[in-house]
Amino acid sequence: MTACTINRPAQTLCREAAQNSKTLRILSHELDCGATVLDFGVQSPGGIVAGLLLSRVCMADLAQVILAPCDISIGPYPLVQVISDDPVRACMAAQYAGWPVQKDKFFAMGSGPMRARRGKEHVLKSLALEEQDSLAVGVLECDAIPSDSICEMIAEECSIAPVDLTLCVAPTRSIAGVLQVVARSVETSLHKLFELGFDLNQIHSAHGTAPTPPPAKSFAEGIGRTNDAILYGGRVTLWVHADDESIERVASRVPSGTSKDWGRPFAETFKDYGFDFYKVDPGLFSPAQIQIHNLKSGRSWCCGELRPDVLEKSFRS
Amino acid sequence: MTACTINRPAQTLCREAAQNSKTLRILSHELDCGATVLDFGVQSPGGIVAGLLLSRVCMADLAQVILAPCDISIGPYPLVQVISDDPVRACMAAQYAGWPVQKDKFFAMGSGPMRARRGKEHVLKSLALEEQDSLAVGVLECDAIPSDSICEMIAEECSIAPVDLTLCVAPTRSIAGVLQVVARSVETSLHKLFELGFDLNQIHSAHGTAPTPPPAKSFAEGIGRTNDAILYGGRVTLWVHADDESIERVASRVPSGTSKDWGRPFAETFKDYGFDFYKVDPGLFSPAQIQIHNLKSGRSWCCGELRPDVLEKSFRS
Amino acid sequence: MTACTINRPAQTLCREAAQNSKTLRILSHELDCGATVLDFGVQSPGGIVAGLLLSRVCMADLAQVILAPCDISIGPYPLVQVISDDPVRACMAAQYAGWPVQKDKFFAMGSGPMRARRGKEHVLKSLALEEQDSLAVGVLECDAIPSDSICEMIAEECSIAPVDLTLCVAPTRSIAGVLQVVARSVETSLHKLFELGFDLNQIHSAHGTAPTPPPAKSFAEGIGRTNDAILYGGRVTLWVHADDESIERVASRVPSGTSKDWGRPFAETFKDYGFDFYKVDPGLFSPAQIQIHNLKSGRSWCCGELRPDVLEKSFRS
Repeated sequence: MTACTINRPAQTLCREAAQNSKTLRILSHELDCGATVLDFGVQSPGGIVAGLLLSRVCMADLAQVILAPCDISIGPYPLVQVISDDPVRACMAAQYAGWPVQKDKFFAMGSGPMRARRGKEHVLKSLALEEQDSLAVGVLECDAIPSDSICEMIAEECSIAPVDLTLCVAPTRSIAGVLQVVARSVETSLHKLFELGFDLNQIHSAHGTAPTPPPAKSFAEGIGRTNDAILYGGRVTLWVHADDESIERVASRVPSGTSKDWGRPFAETFKDYGFDFYKVDPGLFSPAQIQIHNLKSGRSWCCGELRPDVLEKSFRS
Repeated sequence: MTACTINRPAQTLCREAAQNSKTLRILSHELDCGATVLDFGVQSPGGIVAGLLLSRVCMADLAQVILAPCDISIGPYPLVQVISDDPVRACMAAQYAGWPVQKDKFFAMGSGPMRARRGKEHVLKSLALEEQDSLAVGVLECDAIPSDSICEMIAEECSIAPVDLTLCVAPTRSIAGVLQVVARSVETSLHKLFELGFDLNQIHSAHGTAPTPPPAKSFAEGIGRTNDAILYGGRVTLWVHADDESIERVASRVPSGTSKDWGRPFAETFKDYGFDFYKVDPGLFSPAQIQIHNLKSGRSWCCGELRPDVLEKSFRS
Repeated sequence: MTACTINRPAQTLCREAAQNSKTLRILSHELDCGATVLDFGVQSPGGIVAGLLLSRVCMADLAQVILAPCDISIGPYPLVQVISDDPVRACMAAQYAGWPVQKDKFFAMGSGPMRARRGKEHVLKSLALEEQDSLAVGVLECDAIPSDSICEMIAEECSIAPVDLTLCVAPTRSIAGVLQVVARSVETSLHKLFELGFDLNQIHSAHGTAPTPPPAKSFAEGIGRTNDAILYGGRVTLWVHADDESIERVASRVPSGTSKDWGRPFAETFKDYGFDFYKVDPGLFSPAQIQIHNLKSGRSWCCGELRPDVLEKSFRS
């Protein structure tokens, strides 16, 4: 039943990307170990279309991603809009950056459907999202092309041959790297709901938007701005089928604004915690606003607020 | 000249939908009588992409339909945007829900190009929109899969064999069911103009948007919210080629705000009239705002206003 | 290396357009001299989809162009959104209307990739954007189908045979004619930057929007409204890789608001100058607002302001 996995559609997207590498301004490398690495912004410039495509790879082609004009009252930042009718697989099985890929001096946030193939994370096991297949596709947010040694490690963790591994890489400082993070509005809402104990299998469809920040130069600023795009500018609508009580219990706790660390640019918070991610309140990582429609009851919730002032402060720093 | 009919492109869309039924989360049934029924939300969940496609089927593939972010000042509701360069055929020959399909206990609002094949409605005859073809495609807004008996009745009214009938069904309580109604912003403006005696053949192109309400549980609330989306949040632009006087005469009378029943959630009005549709002012059913550009003179009109307060009251009821 | 030119992808688009002429409501003419003329609004109505396609022809298929809902605070005008990862070739080599095509009583603003084939303009030589190919595709903003004599002149200037020339024509008073002008938000920002001495090769990607005005009847009003759409409603984001100083030096000077002729409908200014284009401040032609992200430093600039009041005055005149 390999046809049902989420890695194959992602690989199809990657192949199409490689064929259009010139237009997308990306580079396709075949490493000695046989792994394919698509460079969306390390040595090649990439761009907007590359970034939208990279976002779809992250979500195993289970979402539509476009750029749209932003509300004047929020700012001049084009919005990344995500739509999915399979948000749990798209975001939790694939997009969530739950695999810190680390070896020697190399570090990258790992996301994409390869996570489901690896199957080691708590969230994957908890939601039964592990998958069997002979190939894997992943996305690395990092500043360098991964070496053979890194690719071999990833392939091994996925129990596949390196030749069956496709990695897409983009630094946070690149256009595509920014877009693929900003495309995580829905994902952060799902992850927050998961942490709050909501049964994600009740989520049918999702729509999310977040404003595109300027790519930053430093790692801290880059991670700051892309997070702020979601924390202070992200808006998500979820269509769920659940008991009203189970929604009532969590709805107001989903938006980022419920966190004690909310209200100022993330880079400042991050700095105050000595750049230690694990000291940041995990409840912070969520869209500014969430709307939940309950198909079972017809009731609807909308919680949280946007903060264009913090976006401006963060994006123009 | 069957190639010119509007039922064939709709059937092509339906076949594509059936082929992607898993991704769209729809179900394709072949009834004993031979009719094909595509379930967009009765027993299957359907979703956003299914709803956008269903909207295109309603309009015989003569329009583009997408979801777009909504203005913050209106609310958190994603917008359904419709574009058509053949709005009269798309909306009047096909999309307008002018066929109440009724037999025994079954009732559905019937729309889609099958109406043009049936050709019995005043609006179709008046605009010479009846069509001859050996097949028909329709959309039913209802809570149940139609029986063989219903399909046979529809086929007979269309003078076709049941095997040549394709029906798409979606309840108002489903995601796709909501989207296909909210995609009627342009249609309601055209119908209102028709009622006001404006010659629709003068309308060249159209752009419309309306916010997506939460799917409701009860029939009255569902019909209330989807109507309110248009009445208090719908915005339409029409490009026409006409005498200024003929536009001047109707422009200010098009928006829903000119109706005595305007100003509060439709469900309340509906209830006050004892749930009798025929007691509601027909002039109510129109977008909140209309803009008319006259290609003949270069003059432009914009009438009507949005009411986010009523949307909020209706959608969060 | 003809495969690399920008005229070929434009020709491919034109052929697709001709094949869909009925749906697009355009007309394809083959003149006696062999040239192909696609009529997007002279004798045929054209429409929205035709206009979006025409905009892509102008940019040699190096951009995505869609219609999107407009911010309520700006007005009811649908926005034309442009995205390009190759904005200098799309806008400067192709889209910029830098070729006044004139012969006897015929006059048209000439744009599209044929300009690069002709290669005579200062901007093309300066940016080394001239191209060699045996075919050419151009767009004419004019009220009449060009004659054999005009086509032969254009072909000769492009050093090609008339049979290898494709021209798309649309008057400013047509739907498609308006859209293709309003799709010039990014182009005007690039041209202004060029005039300010900024090295355009440093521009990686671009996103722009501008509101769609009502098509006007007279030439002066038409040119007035379409310009106003950019001057008072245009918003552009550029991703560049440059020294901060080189951006700092120009950023605040890019928006239209820095011009002495800014602040009232263009048609009024134009009239006061006796309808002499060359008396208008060239610095006026630029988007209302520009945002520049510097990939090299991570800094970002946003300058200029929108003026919905002037849009209203211009569009409802």
